Amino acid sequence: MAVYTHISAEALERFLADYDVGALRSAKGIAEGVENSNYLVETETGRFILTLYEKRVDLADLPFFLDLKAHLSNQGLPVPRPIPDRTGTALRTLAGRPACLIEFLPGVSPDTPNPAQCEAVGRALGDLHRAAETFTGSRPNDLGLSGWRPLAERCGESLETITPGLRAAIFAELDILERDWPTGLERSIIHADLFPDNVLMLGDRVTGLIDFYFACTDIRAYDLAITHASWVFDPDGARFHPDRSAALVKGYEAAHGLTPEERAALPLLARGASMRFLLTRAWDWLNTPADALVTRKDPLAFRRRLDFYRDHGAEAFAR
Amino acid sequence: MAVYTHISAEALERFLADYDVGALRSAKGIAEGVENSNYLVETETGRFILTLYEKRVDLADLPFFLDLKAHLSNQGLPVPRPIPDRTGTALRTLAGRPACLIEFLPGVSPDTPNPAQCEAVGRALGDLHRAAETFTGSRPNDLGLSGWRPLAERCGESLETITPGLRAAIFAELDILERDWPTGLERSIIHADLFPDNVLMLGDRVTGLIDFYFACTDIRAYDLAITHASWVFDPDGARFHPDRSAALVKGYEAAHGLTPEERAALPLLARGASMRFLLTRAWDWLNTPADALVTRKDPLAFRRRLDFYRDHGAEAFAR
Repeated sequence: MAVYTHISAEALERFLADYDVGALRSAKGIAEGVENSNYLVETETGRFILTLYEKRVDLADLPFFLDLKAHLSNQGLPVPRPIPDRTGTALRTLAGRPACLIEFLPGVSPDTPNPAQCEAVGRALGDLHRAAETFTGSRPNDLGLSGWRPLAERCGESLETITPGLRAAIFAELDILERDWPTGLERSIIHADLFPDNVLMLGDRVTGLIDFYFACTDIRAYDLAITHASWVFDPDGARFHPDRSAALVKGYEAAHGLTPEERAALPLLARGASMRFLLTRAWDWLNTPADALVTRKDPLAFRRRLDFYRDHGAEAFAR
Repeated sequence: MAVYTHISAEALERFLADYDVGALRSAKGIAEGVENSNYLVETETGRFILTLYEKRVDLADLPFFLDLKAHLSNQGLPVPRPIPDRTGTALRTLAGRPACLIEFLPGVSPDTPNPAQCEAVGRALGDLHRAAETFTGSRPNDLGLSGWRPLAERCGESLETITPGLRAAIFAELDILERDWPTGLERSIIHADLFPDNVLMLGDRVTGLIDFYFACTDIRAYDLAITHASWVFDPDGARFHPDRSAALVKGYEAAHGLTPEERAALPLLARGASMRFLLTRAWDWLNTPADALVTRKDPLAFRRRLDFYRDHGAEAFAR
């Protein structure tokens, strides 16, 4: 992120002295994530990510996120493990902020995923849902179906400044989503934000599933829909890649399986996923000055996906 | 820095394929430096810093900086070595910007240096001046004595908005510096910006001298004065640490030596060093909006140093 909490080398050395990780060798603030400050820390025994939670993260949610990461890591998933200090505590305080030392995982995020990478991420998502079955925690999804209309109303007339007609289109779509949203599908812990930049890969292999700060309890297949919307289009949403789409769903089905009801619901769930990112991006767009140093992400990239799923969703998810 | 050039994993893989460094394993944008974009890159064979030079760096100076780093590294100094590609070229282009893959060095920068660390950095600076004797390049110091008055004039009346009386104090001091600035002292390649955050250390050992982007040709002892001004005060300039001061000069003298003329000139050279950072910080202060995400550094931290050197410089540098 642009401004991060500065941690002096001396303070970091004192902090690390409570862990069995050896002496500090290097620490670099990394420009990753917009919610937290992150350092890439090297000690005599390895590399770690040190995360300091800034004000955008609800502190009450932190134990859920950290417990979930620990659980998934213990289940063998490539999820960064929170490192406990010598007293067994993973959630600490540093420079007045909640802080956690976290396992470093290798890998890079693909900008232009190929079908083999999409299949691998589909499998990884299926594995994640399987491993999450034994996790006892839960967290409501405040960016789920019931949150969309209030968010659209808070954006209000300003939506028209993004593009004329956007406001009416959003509310018409909300009517349909609220009327048709499936009620009988299995619920699960979901990642809820498994975009390519939250996946680390080496070649076609998934080496890291990261950034669980939107994880929550919701319809399990909705997570596949979010992943689909973020992996099988060009970033601007203008081009759909059928080979990526087929590979992603195939990978998920191989690892976890999809019921006929889940498969049938995917087009609508994907419209919902597009709505979620359209609305949060619209909100950020309207509340970020155009000349801010933070890059504003184009909300219309997800309106294009929404239109695609509405017009071609049935074909896109057909076997 | 706040906004940096985004390099896709795919583009980075193609770039690294021209080097003998093995396959990419990880890449993190790091929040270091305000002039450049930097990535911490890990490959199968090691770690590297990838620097992309943004518009604030004069491209014509890059070969000087890179040649100097290569020379000092070859002389055994802990200076990050530019890595040549298979054709022997270190200065490349990536994402439309000049780019260089550079050796990664371990270590962290002290926030509160102790006397042993000051002695070590004094020795390292002496070693640097010694090793630079065989370097054939040169570069004028555009932030040296002749650049101060024009910079003060460009700041103009606005200096008074920083603190009343600052403008008159600066011009009175410039009169003295221009009248008394030593002319007979040895000149050398100098680092010119060896603040603690440009030194990496493990304990009391210097493991890295970094950020040579102000390196130039100027009075050799002026470099010791800059290092003195940045290591022996609290950051806000309010407190002088005589033990650090003595250790720094002792270290430099042990590694390189100081002539009686150099030692006698140190109080005035340190006033000049304070003026240089007072003026550049004042300029940045006046040209950075108060609500910018970039932290503005307090110019008055160096006015306090200037006042200290004027009033107590002779004692500070006495044997």
